[in-house]
Amino acid sequence: MKPACESALLTDLYQLTMLQAYWQHGMDGEAVFELFVRKLPESRAFLVAAGLEQALDFVEGARFADDELAWIERSGRFAPGFAQWLSELRFTGDIWAMPEGTVFFADEPVLRVVAPIAQAQWLETRLLNLIHFQTAIASKAARCVLAAQGRTLIDFGLRRAHGAEAGLLAARAAYLAGFAGTATVLAGARFGIPVFGTMAHSFVQAHDSEAEAFARFAESFPQHTVLLLDTYDTVAAARRVVELAPRLAARGIEVKGVRLDSGDLDALARAVRRVLDAGGLRRATIFASGNLDEHRVAALAASGAPIDSFGIGTSLTTSSDAPYLDAVYKLQEYAAMARRKRSAGKSTWPGRKQVWRARDASGRFCGDLVTLHDEPGEGEPLLVPVMRGGRRLPQPALADARARCREQLEALPPALRILTPPWPAYPVTIGAGVRRLAGEVDARTP
Amino acid sequence: MKPACESALLTDLYQLTMLQAYWQHGMDGEAVFELFVRKLPESRAFLVAAGLEQALDFVEGARFADDELAWIERSGRFAPGFAQWLSELRFTGDIWAMPEGTVFFADEPVLRVVAPIAQAQWLETRLLNLIHFQTAIASKAARCVLAAQGRTLIDFGLRRAHGAEAGLLAARAAYLAGFAGTATVLAGARFGIPVFGTMAHSFVQAHDSEAEAFARFAESFPQHTVLLLDTYDTVAAARRVVELAPRLAARGIEVKGVRLDSGDLDALARAVRRVLDAGGLRRATIFASGNLDEHRVAALAASGAPIDSFGIGTSLTTSSDAPYLDAVYKLQEYAAMARRKRSAGKSTWPGRKQVWRARDASGRFCGDLVTLHDEPGEGEPLLVPVMRGGRRLPQPALADARARCREQLEALPPALRILTPPWPAYPVTIGAGVRRLAGEVDARTP
Repeated sequence: MKPACESALLTDLYQLTMLQAYWQHGMDGEAVFELFVRKLPESRAFLVAAGLEQALDFVEGARFADDELAWIERSGRFAPGFAQWLSELRFTGDIWAMPEGTVFFADEPVLRVVAPIAQAQWLETRLLNLIHFQTAIASKAARCVLAAQGRTLIDFGLRRAHGAEAGLLAARAAYLAGFAGTATVLAGARFGIPVFGTMAHSFVQAHDSEAEAFARFAESFPQHTVLLLDTYDTVAAARRVVELAPRLAARGIEVKGVRLDSGDLDALARAVRRVLDAGGLRRATIFASGNLDEHRVAALAASGAPIDSFGIGTSLTTSSDAPYLDAVYKLQEYAAMARRKRSAGKSTWPGRKQVWRARDASGRFCGDLVTLHDEPGEGEPLLVPVMRGGRRLPQPALADARARCREQLEALPPALRILTPPWPAYPVTIGAGVRRLAGEVDARTP
Repeated sequence: MKPACESALLTDLYQLTMLQAYWQHGMDGEAVFELFVRKLPESRAFLVAAGLEQALDFVEGARFADDELAWIERSGRFAPGFAQWLSELRFTGDIWAMPEGTVFFADEPVLRVVAPIAQAQWLETRLLNLIHFQTAIASKAARCVLAAQGRTLIDFGLRRAHGAEAGLLAARAAYLAGFAGTATVLAGARFGIPVFGTMAHSFVQAHDSEAEAFARFAESFPQHTVLLLDTYDTVAAARRVVELAPRLAARGIEVKGVRLDSGDLDALARAVRRVLDAGGLRRATIFASGNLDEHRVAALAASGAPIDSFGIGTSLTTSSDAPYLDAVYKLQEYAAMARRKRSAGKSTWPGRKQVWRARDASGRFCGDLVTLHDEPGEGEPLLVPVMRGGRRLPQPALADARARCREQLEALPPALRILTPPWPAYPVTIGAGVRRLAGEVDARTP
């Protein structure tokens, strides 16, 4: 059986029950589903769209393997012939989406699927699973980037990410949002993201003296000698590095940097900087890690702590202060009729829509307008075609998405670049055409 | 290239750099690493060990594929011959662990690896990634189980779980902790977990009338007719179900239940129950979902709301109030010498250890003792051998782990079964032998 990330059974059972009902009742009209976030987490002023690349991979490759169909037949839940019908299911529809790296807000569709209803329904669970996660991480990472004010950020969070795919794709989302790289080797191999890493405390502990551990590591990695200082006593370790440096220099090895991973990082960075500078290691950089998030990075940057780079782990890869978004995938039109749900607190805006973003004279975002897709608008239309007839259109490379995200963060209204609420509401206007359509749908629906 | 969950490159770069240094310097002594949680999240009174099965799969299968080795060579970071050495790397050591479903606390090793240092170091990132996640989810799920007081719980959280593996393994961890099943089809196919599911709002919306949607679904799933009521108006929909029921009964179809997914679930459940009962549908059950967590489930259970089953999604699969644990994997011994780090706030207890759990006369847990592994203790030794010489020993089935978890939750001190802090500290005593050893290590380490 295929791994989870490739399995057609990685879906909710109700997708399959609905597919059977659509099939049995001959419902094959065109459906329009939109993926959007109903409400931003309290700790987010904006979100960054990410995960489209993996979503398109999924849609293009979606099909049931023989052993998956056999399981469906064996389960005894489904009608005769359904597995056979599923075996031929492919996505043949169209998808529009915001390019990765686009900043967006609540109630704005980031992706629209147009296809026969069974095909469009079929995608729901995994599309959400892929886009929700990378969007959550890219949005968290963007806050870290704003906090760091140009200092280098590295993703350190694989070990406490939620499983394999989360670790890999968090590295991608963080890079997209402006991180310089990751410790996750596979993200380097798979996506070409720069990979960083040195040593753990265990390496120091396994030697009878810290100095010996440092010397051996430097010998093994003469081009990448970054030494971890806090296994026993951070400042004493910095003095050991200074003592060791001339011996290494004699062999052509330069200490590129040191890493602090615990304690009062502000005070320790200053103390270590003094020791390194006094010892002639002015070029050695200081790397800090250990329970960091955007708030701690901002405080260290604001205080002027001499830290060149930060490793951010768990808080990034779990988006720990906002580990989920209220992301949903909703039917907005079927068989040429607009549709909406009116569930308490969860009602939706009907119809297939477009999002227009206006900028002020300085290029800053000043307001979005949500219209029906064929209505005129002003500014940049954020949803663009990404798949036609089941085939993906040429997509921006990861470097392009990263550049787009950088530009988007620069164009954010300054009040939204602040890390903590309250934030002014960014103006997202639901256009008159959408509102009128909602009234028409309500008048029609019992 | 293999998917993330099977790739040997799903690791931190520093594991590879340390491996090269160990290899180059001939360091092949026996290392002991222990995996433990330093401190519990503020919203957790206990944790439930989970993920061992997948961890052992990983360890038994760990090796580098040819294309992974080729990437390592191409990266230009490593010494000549290192990739060749890596190609022959296999885990040949021993592992002890707490059985899945075991309740545990801070500072207690849940897993111990004993192997040549490169082999043991090699496992760190993915071992943590696997055990950290399932333990976080099983611990969250156990709280939901306590809250539900015997009502049925179903995992609904795949769409907002952090990627594919998180969705699949959250279903497993929740089932292990006492959930009745999941909506995730693959969890049924892979682990034999019962799978549940009905219809989404889109199914109702795609029909011109709600009554037609209900009738069609019932025809398609006569044995599993559960109808979703809240697309437009929950109580009106319940009346439609009652109107429809005789027509369905005439064709041998019984409405098994209804689902509420929004609004005031307490009031709506009571209103819907009255409508169903008055309409002769006394046997139809009420299923509730929509932004539920253990606190809302406890409140609904306490108020006597007539809800038979709960679907819990995002809060479960992201463990949203505690999306990570302070889980670490630390070197405790190398080359027959105990080791410890003394980093500020992160110092460790050295040596290879055992955890003993005592029970009172009523069978309730009354205190744990952490000893050196060869010291005597009283009660149940929680760490047992699970792998010898790189081969897994026979392991309990998932049903057995689930039964163990149920027994463990029953044996919890009543004060720890409460959902909110403050909790009394559960007594975990670090034994005199461990403390003495820490003093000896400190005296020896500069």
